[in-house]
Amino acid sequence: MDANAFYTAEQHGNFEVHDLGDFVLEGGATLRDAKLAYTTYGELNERGDNAILFPVMFSGTHAAMAPYVGEGLALDPAQYFIVIPNQLGGGLSSSPHNYPAPYDARYFPEVTIGDDVRAQHQLLAHLGVKHLELVTGWSMGAQQTYEWAVRYPDMVERAVPIGGTAKTTSHCALYVDVFCEALTSDPAWNGGDYHQSTDVEEGLRRMAHVFAMMGVSREFYNENMWQEFGFSSYDDFLKGLWENWFLPMDPNNLLSMAKKWRTADVVHILAVTWLKRWPRLGPRFL
Amino acid sequence: MDANAFYTAEQHGNFEVHDLGDFVLEGGATLRDAKLAYTTYGELNERGDNAILFPVMFSGTHAAMAPYVGEGLALDPAQYFIVIPNQLGGGLSSSPHNYPAPYDARYFPEVTIGDDVRAQHQLLAHLGVKHLELVTGWSMGAQQTYEWAVRYPDMVERAVPIGGTAKTTSHCALYVDVFCEALTSDPAWNGGDYHQSTDVEEGLRRMAHVFAMMGVSREFYNENMWQEFGFSSYDDFLKGLWENWFLPMDPNNLLSMAKKWRTADVVHILAVTWLKRWPRLGPRFL
Repeated sequence: MDANAFYTAEQHGNFEVHDLGDFVLEGGATLRDAKLAYTTYGELNERGDNAILFPVMFSGTHAAMAPYVGEGLALDPAQYFIVIPNQLGGGLSSSPHNYPAPYDARYFPEVTIGDDVRAQHQLLAHLGVKHLELVTGWSMGAQQTYEWAVRYPDMVERAVPIGGTAKTTSHCALYVDVFCEALTSDPAWNGGDYHQSTDVEEGLRRMAHVFAMMGVSREFYNENMWQEFGFSSYDDFLKGLWENWFLPMDPNNLLSMAKKWRTADVVHILAVTWLKRWPRLGPRFL
Repeated sequence: MDANAFYTAEQHGNFEVHDLGDFVLEGGATLRDAKLAYTTYGELNERGDNAILFPVMFSGTHAAMAPYVGEGLALDPAQYFIVIPNQLGGGLSSSPHNYPAPYDARYFPEVTIGDDVRAQHQLLAHLGVKHLELVTGWSMGAQQTYEWAVRYPDMVERAVPIGGTAKTTSHCALYVDVFCEALTSDPAWNGGDYHQSTDVEEGLRRMAHVFAMMGVSREFYNENMWQEFGFSSYDDFLKGLWENWFLPMDPNNLLSMAKKWRTADVVHILAVTWLKRWPRLGPRFL
């Protein structure tokens, strides 16, 4: 295990770890002793039906979702039992940088959105959750939301995918390719065989720039909206938000999530699952 | 001189070359024996006042503009004398790849939009053009259009800048930085000291991907609009249009134009020129 100090509770706040056992991925590989990191808010009721699942976006962890959970907010822990699972490959769950050989680092097997959702389903069973009032998330969180809705329609009362697609479009795949190329063009990337993640600093910075370009709108820049977030200039925003976000991360972890993003396609799941249940109506999309 | 076969009349059609003499750039360097490549359509009338100037976009030459000139089109050579100047740095005019030492290749001095416009002004005087019925162009062609309107307002009757800005926005500067990083991250780039342009193939391909992502809309991809342009698939579009466009080009040329794009700012020219002429109204923007 790489002792990357970024992927710790000190950086992201406390979290629980669910032992998935020997977890067979859709691609055929088995992640032995696989781990799923997560946090919860609120209490599960006796019927196990007041739960909300809030999966995370690309490069995010449960820490990024915490501001959206709170008294008086839609995700109110006084009313709901809210589960925030970290992605496989995301750095806190089993991931390239923390997984033992022979599946370590660049040899970490390809993970799919379906793998994440099946792992989360296993976690919810362990926690006693019978029914989800809501699954919601943005970007890759939305991909997981779609997958939940079509894979476990009996369990999902409402699905609210935000800013994400059920099947990655070609333009979005191009976006993924462009930021992966920005990262892997760094000679220090070396096919994933680097000594420590910070060796790939130039690639990580370039990747951050692609995200800065695509992650917020032209209007955001034209109107200097970075001021509202406490940045003193365009350059300060680029470094203070985007470079600062990606620089401590592990390139193999990022690429594991990126592949998952790029290959997301719930349409085949939709066909298989919904046709089996026809003409029963699937979950309601709000 | 690098004998890059791409920057020839065989590839771009015939063109004329105007000798600019010893041309002093805004940055202070002198391009001795500087050349401005151009084409014309139609005939200049005796008063020299039926001219249209149609400057080119980033990485484009006069060849890219030819389809917009023709009988029955807005740019009708039966009515107007149409001048299409190639950019300094663009490969046909004086450019990094064709300029002699000590200003050759990576040592080619920084060129500005104002330099292009002053060189074009010199060309038009040579051709006997007294008055421009119209200046128009898109992207970097629009940047030159804005510059013309504020630098030579007495000469410009109408200015139609299309899809471009008078001052590069921070989001647009980020776009330029991202595609330059995609190119220069190729170790073969070597600070501009490569043996031949094709050595930097990987960087050129990556740059092409950034343009593919930003150069057409999400809707274009979502609706597979590449079909209308004769491409058989998304991959075929990526390679057949974008990689094919950039792969034969010279990286130092591209970066010369990119720097010009990034630093475009006619606002100071506007202030100086228009304030001097106050309260005379400047050129009409259609």
